[in-house]
Amino acid sequence: MARNTTVKADHNAPAITELLAKFVVNHPSKGWSDKVDYEAHRTFANWFGCAIGPSQHETVHAALAAVSELSPAPQAAILGRRERVDIANAAMINGISSHTFDFDDTHLKTIIHPAGPVASAVLALGEHIGSTGREMIDALVLGIEVSCRLGNAVYPNHYDRGWHITGSTGMLGSAAACSRLLKLDAARTQMALGIAASQPIGLREQFGTMTKPFHPGGAAKAGLMAALMAKHGYTASKRALEAPRGLLQVFSDKTDWAEVTEKLGETWEIEINTYKPFACGIVIHPSIDGCVQLRNQHNLKPEDISKVTIKVHSLVLELTGKKTPADGLQGKFSVYHSCAAGIIFGRAGEHEYSDEVVNREDVVALRSKVEAIVDDSIDEASSDVTIETTDGRTLHVFVEHAVGSVERPMTDEQLKAKFVDQSEPVIGREKAEQAWTLSMQLATLSSVKNLLGAATPA
Amino acid sequence: MARNTTVKADHNAPAITELLAKFVVNHPSKGWSDKVDYEAHRTFANWFGCAIGPSQHETVHAALAAVSELSPAPQAAILGRRERVDIANAAMINGISSHTFDFDDTHLKTIIHPAGPVASAVLALGEHIGSTGREMIDALVLGIEVSCRLGNAVYPNHYDRGWHITGSTGMLGSAAACSRLLKLDAARTQMALGIAASQPIGLREQFGTMTKPFHPGGAAKAGLMAALMAKHGYTASKRALEAPRGLLQVFSDKTDWAEVTEKLGETWEIEINTYKPFACGIVIHPSIDGCVQLRNQHNLKPEDISKVTIKVHSLVLELTGKKTPADGLQGKFSVYHSCAAGIIFGRAGEHEYSDEVVNREDVVALRSKVEAIVDDSIDEASSDVTIETTDGRTLHVFVEHAVGSVERPMTDEQLKAKFVDQSEPVIGREKAEQAWTLSMQLATLSSVKNLLGAATPA
Repeated sequence: MARNTTVKADHNAPAITELLAKFVVNHPSKGWSDKVDYEAHRTFANWFGCAIGPSQHETVHAALAAVSELSPAPQAAILGRRERVDIANAAMINGISSHTFDFDDTHLKTIIHPAGPVASAVLALGEHIGSTGREMIDALVLGIEVSCRLGNAVYPNHYDRGWHITGSTGMLGSAAACSRLLKLDAARTQMALGIAASQPIGLREQFGTMTKPFHPGGAAKAGLMAALMAKHGYTASKRALEAPRGLLQVFSDKTDWAEVTEKLGETWEIEINTYKPFACGIVIHPSIDGCVQLRNQHNLKPEDISKVTIKVHSLVLELTGKKTPADGLQGKFSVYHSCAAGIIFGRAGEHEYSDEVVNREDVVALRSKVEAIVDDSIDEASSDVTIETTDGRTLHVFVEHAVGSVERPMTDEQLKAKFVDQSEPVIGREKAEQAWTLSMQLATLSSVKNLLGAATPA
Repeated sequence: MARNTTVKADHNAPAITELLAKFVVNHPSKGWSDKVDYEAHRTFANWFGCAIGPSQHETVHAALAAVSELSPAPQAAILGRRERVDIANAAMINGISSHTFDFDDTHLKTIIHPAGPVASAVLALGEHIGSTGREMIDALVLGIEVSCRLGNAVYPNHYDRGWHITGSTGMLGSAAACSRLLKLDAARTQMALGIAASQPIGLREQFGTMTKPFHPGGAAKAGLMAALMAKHGYTASKRALEAPRGLLQVFSDKTDWAEVTEKLGETWEIEINTYKPFACGIVIHPSIDGCVQLRNQHNLKPEDISKVTIKVHSLVLELTGKKTPADGLQGKFSVYHSCAAGIIFGRAGEHEYSDEVVNREDVVALRSKVEAIVDDSIDEASSDVTIETTDGRTLHVFVEHAVGSVERPMTDEQLKAKFVDQSEPVIGREKAEQAWTLSMQLATLSSVKNLLGAATPA
């Protein structure tokens, strides 16, 4: 039987489960600046397009086929598809879809993809219970605040340990957001957070498989069900997050409680959310950006290149060091392929991560000329890119912050282009434009009926 | 961003995800002794009665009310109730129900309650797809082998860290069992284990709340859905369990791979499963047993007692040291209440953990006379009990192994009495007897139709 060998129990943690529950329940609607509300709409719209784009992908097909075995009630929409399923599974499938192309948003402080677990639950539940757009934006902001602050409290130790932090904190953001939408009181919201705390989802080991996008989807579903259970009186520990054997102390060796408590309700994590310009792991972005910059400045063609050298932090290779990716999904975890794609195509959208492109002869040839050197003096958000040409030139750029970062945010025009680029093949140009416009106006909509109509193919 | 501070990665782990998948797929039906098959039936029957007993409890009501919001299809039975829900949620609710009275089975080597996550999934899925009783017993034995061996590999470190090991390994047992029932091939079974590996459920912090029984229920559901997803081609890491960032290395600081690999298919963990004679945490059992023994030997009445002293391992107080439990559920985590109940009633079934009994004046008075002394030289499975009487006698017993342990197993008669005692108030005497008989004959049944009929109230 067990010895009591737990070494690091902190018995003086603040009561953050209660604190967050009260915050989620009591914070006023739009109790933040216009800037925060604007970023919330960009977060929602970016997520919405990212969920439509992969809706016909085999990952979504497989998940939906499994769910269909339950003969689910047609309660809520699956973005980009005509099928409808129950709210828990709609949350799961939209969460899976939105992360399938690895093209969604990133809270760079923790590498959490915040929208997937929260927006997926908010939309499915909100559609079913008839929430207004304003209520949904409120729930989205508050839910993301909960998951990102808890992420801040355990990052990087928790992530380094091997957890995929998007899913392992996301169920708490989803539970918070759904509790808000359901208008639960603080005591029940505290229980919802507690029930969700027993269900962290996600291992980094799954990167490169369909189970990676399952993590935000599973988290969305777990949080939604936790809120429904709490609504009906299901109980959990009141200190499920902070107790010596609460979630944060169990799944992380270090916890900074101040990240949860300080300036709660005054600063907003969604304000520093970012959106991916490239359909791959965020740590590759500065390297692609550098390759695209040099390509465009010097009008480079693949045949001009003799060698590409990138100097990056060790984390970049740890996460995306796949030298010879076999298919599109593996390509997203290959800084080598990504740099080659950036040079050949001048972009790295979903198309550049198709099985076909990843195995194309010219892409494979250029990929083999890319060398990555670890230099931990370089920040993970940066990259030092040098291209040597066959005619003897050495071209160099140091990318401190990639496009799409907090410092160099995507413009609304770029976001819209990304949205339409993904959605048009699924729902057509007109609906894609309409879905973008309505997403960016969500807080003014009395219901999501028209928005979901736009997201459904004819 | 993250530093790479993970210290303990073991890059030489055997390929246990693949090994277990092949084992689950290829091991022949009833490829074990009659003794193992017999214990599998006792495991199933004990679980079945434990799920019927609490079926009207508020915990089950709350969970079912939440599930009902999904308008689930009536695919599978909820034991002891007339409602039917989809197979995933039936697995969840039966799993919750079976652990609600904390009266189910225990694999003492790990304190895993093995049946809940596995049998709940097997029954729901097996009913729906028309499995034979033989197929269900096979799946139960193999699923429990998977979860208990994985538990052995990480115990006690994982448990000491704060995980409720029943739910945090149970989803793997459920995934294995459901893969077997679905007749998935080894590659898909490996994926099912991988998908499940991202979903460990359960914190010890939740003990004393409704979320504790949610852990086996949630694990049953997660494993069942993982198998369904794998059936339809959903993918996961092939080394999701053993990789340096696979589940076992992420959620435990120490892993003994030999516990998984050695004599796999030759020895059977279900053979050392045990069943609770008392409706509370297993570590209290030797203390209750000692109190009941002294009570019966000396015909003790509560008013005869001046003091009760138990010497136990520190784990006992860590898990069940609640001095003044406020209600029945908390009573299950109070060695003080449990000893008082043993002396007053000569038993500690579910009735002795009602809110009423826990707050009864004579029970509270006797409880306050119980003193617990930590002595780590005493095994957690033992208890040294001394009762001092008002007339000056000092009575003593040392309980090395409590009734219900591997060394002093419950007889079939005792198990049947426990089954009927729990089931009769729900389904009546006749159906209770019938349900017991059919449960103990499961491998001979061509379907579970009659068995489920017996478990459904008129």
